[in-house]
Amino acid sequence: MKFVLAPDSFKESMSAKKAALAMEKGIRTIFPDADCVIVPMADGGEGTVESLVSMTNGEMVKVDVIGPLGEKVLAEYGLLGEGKTAVIEMASASGLELIKPENRNPLVTTTYGTGQLIKHALDIGVSRILIGIGGSATNDGGAGMLQALGVSFKDQDGQELPFGGGALNQLASIDVSGLDSRINNVKIDVACDVTNPLIGVNGASAVFGPQKGATPEVVKLLDENLGHYAEVIKRILGKDIAHTEGAGAAGGLGTGLMAFLNANLKKGVDLVIEYTGLEDRIKGADYVFTGEGSIDGQTLFGKTPFGVASIAKKYSIPVIAFAGRIGNGVEPLYDHGFTSIVGILKGCTSLDDALKSGEANLAFAAENICRLLKI
Amino acid sequence: MKFVLAPDSFKESMSAKKAALAMEKGIRTIFPDADCVIVPMADGGEGTVESLVSMTNGEMVKVDVIGPLGEKVLAEYGLLGEGKTAVIEMASASGLELIKPENRNPLVTTTYGTGQLIKHALDIGVSRILIGIGGSATNDGGAGMLQALGVSFKDQDGQELPFGGGALNQLASIDVSGLDSRINNVKIDVACDVTNPLIGVNGASAVFGPQKGATPEVVKLLDENLGHYAEVIKRILGKDIAHTEGAGAAGGLGTGLMAFLNANLKKGVDLVIEYTGLEDRIKGADYVFTGEGSIDGQTLFGKTPFGVASIAKKYSIPVIAFAGRIGNGVEPLYDHGFTSIVGILKGCTSLDDALKSGEANLAFAAENICRLLKI
Repeated sequence: MKFVLAPDSFKESMSAKKAALAMEKGIRTIFPDADCVIVPMADGGEGTVESLVSMTNGEMVKVDVIGPLGEKVLAEYGLLGEGKTAVIEMASASGLELIKPENRNPLVTTTYGTGQLIKHALDIGVSRILIGIGGSATNDGGAGMLQALGVSFKDQDGQELPFGGGALNQLASIDVSGLDSRINNVKIDVACDVTNPLIGVNGASAVFGPQKGATPEVVKLLDENLGHYAEVIKRILGKDIAHTEGAGAAGGLGTGLMAFLNANLKKGVDLVIEYTGLEDRIKGADYVFTGEGSIDGQTLFGKTPFGVASIAKKYSIPVIAFAGRIGNGVEPLYDHGFTSIVGILKGCTSLDDALKSGEANLAFAAENICRLLKI
Repeated sequence: MKFVLAPDSFKESMSAKKAALAMEKGIRTIFPDADCVIVPMADGGEGTVESLVSMTNGEMVKVDVIGPLGEKVLAEYGLLGEGKTAVIEMASASGLELIKPENRNPLVTTTYGTGQLIKHALDIGVSRILIGIGGSATNDGGAGMLQALGVSFKDQDGQELPFGGGALNQLASIDVSGLDSRINNVKIDVACDVTNPLIGVNGASAVFGPQKGATPEVVKLLDENLGHYAEVIKRILGKDIAHTEGAGAAGGLGTGLMAFLNANLKKGVDLVIEYTGLEDRIKGADYVFTGEGSIDGQTLFGKTPFGVASIAKKYSIPVIAFAGRIGNGVEPLYDHGFTSIVGILKGCTSLDDALKSGEANLAFAAENICRLLKI
């Protein structure tokens, strides 16, 4: 009997790995000799580095970088067990959480530190980089990241631009000759679940600017600046990116990654599936267990259990999805590989107690599902 | 595919019948043509009359009786669909809930009304009576019930004793010649899950007296009076009942029922199983669904799902038990016919919301279990 255990984390309760281990515990109560293949999952957001590193017995690499406001920040990224793959969360170097709410200012915040993490991974000699871009504090179109990698952004006086989206209106020329040439030998994948273009009403500034501290006036300015940035890119690199899907992700970091680094933007869960080798691992399984803290109608839109179920469906393997909360609108999931959706709560408790009991509850539910599978 | 749906009620959320219908709804989503046999269950306590009446399309019979304090009470009992079986809850005529807390007084409360219900059932012509004896306000050894059925309890002056356990010390003689002779042709079963003897430290007065309003002094008096009552019964009827298991149930009503009416005391759930014909209905089923609001270590001691599982186990039919709350100590249940125990909550909510969502949650859980059974 082969089980593949591929949950996401149960947020604020247990990591994906702990969730998988809880499932295993429940399974082994009933099937002591089962083959349990543990594949801690993630959706490209929070927990992605942890899941991939823990699964491959990789390590975390700590690097001093320049933070979003130019301050020193001790960031980190994951180096997978084979030593050739870096997994970077931009938020570690350039994230909104690094700045107190009153200091958030997308006119000046920079992605420079993210570029430093990429550079550090190149120094180590990786051949593949997965970048998660959620939680950014920035609106600089990725210019800071590119500066860290050797690209030069100059104003009409030939002066290098200062950090931040507020300066991009001064951009007159871009010099890519200094771009770290090792980039050409590295595959860069970006976990990106948003399709926002760089500019306009659905653009980076309008949609994500306010949560980064931009007033309506500042949003307008930032949007105009990114529009100018895109025009210069078009003129110099010949790439028309302003309206490309995902170009507006992470304050336009999507633009910098695609236009300068030939990065591929993909759905986060699809990348995690690729990087974990889930499809190969799933072949021959009798059952796939997945799950997440909450499963609802939104799960259909690229959440981890959906990605896992999609792969299992290709091989007609039943999928049992566990969740602490089952919301409305789950019915369509049954058409996409979900065999059964199982709540793990054992009674009415406070959220706090439920979160604390997550592992025990998940193990119990998995055990009782196995009791049925054994019939 | 044949399912037997035999839940108890989910207290404060749904009756046993509604629970069974919710299960059926979930099942039919997956197995539209399944044979769903609905057997609303109970454990001899609250809900027993409702379940048996609803299952057999019986009716409720209302009767004016003398209440526990001698007042007029409109009581009711169930007449099952075949018209030959009465199901009586003594609490309807002689229950603690009929008296305001400040008026509760086991020195004077009587089971007379319960006897009137039995007499009414005899008038209708039943051949079988199931009596539930939980929730009594009385400590009269069943003397009141027997008086209503024609038994005479006299003091040494030949005067009929007044109502209540406080008068039993005056008992000098018992005359059973007036006992309604129709009793001899009726089978009386008493749903009784307690094993307390009539007297002593585990007796009716000591254990149940205080919750009926008895002070320590009154408990002592009541216990002595029941001891005297037992001695007179032994002398007149030749039956030594003071220490018989269950004789102390319902303030000694167990004694009156056993010594005078040849009633059989049995576990409530076993009687419900017998009266519902559960065993015959369960034969040939592929699955049995049961459940209750709460399942925990106590379920082992005669709760409905345990009784249902015990029957299913005889025929090696898998049992899936659903519950709103799964408490500690359920492990032994798996050795007694429980195949799987499934929580129905879909997330952290208030108890109030959980109770209101009971039917929807149960239907969802049953559906998702069926999705597994279909693999």
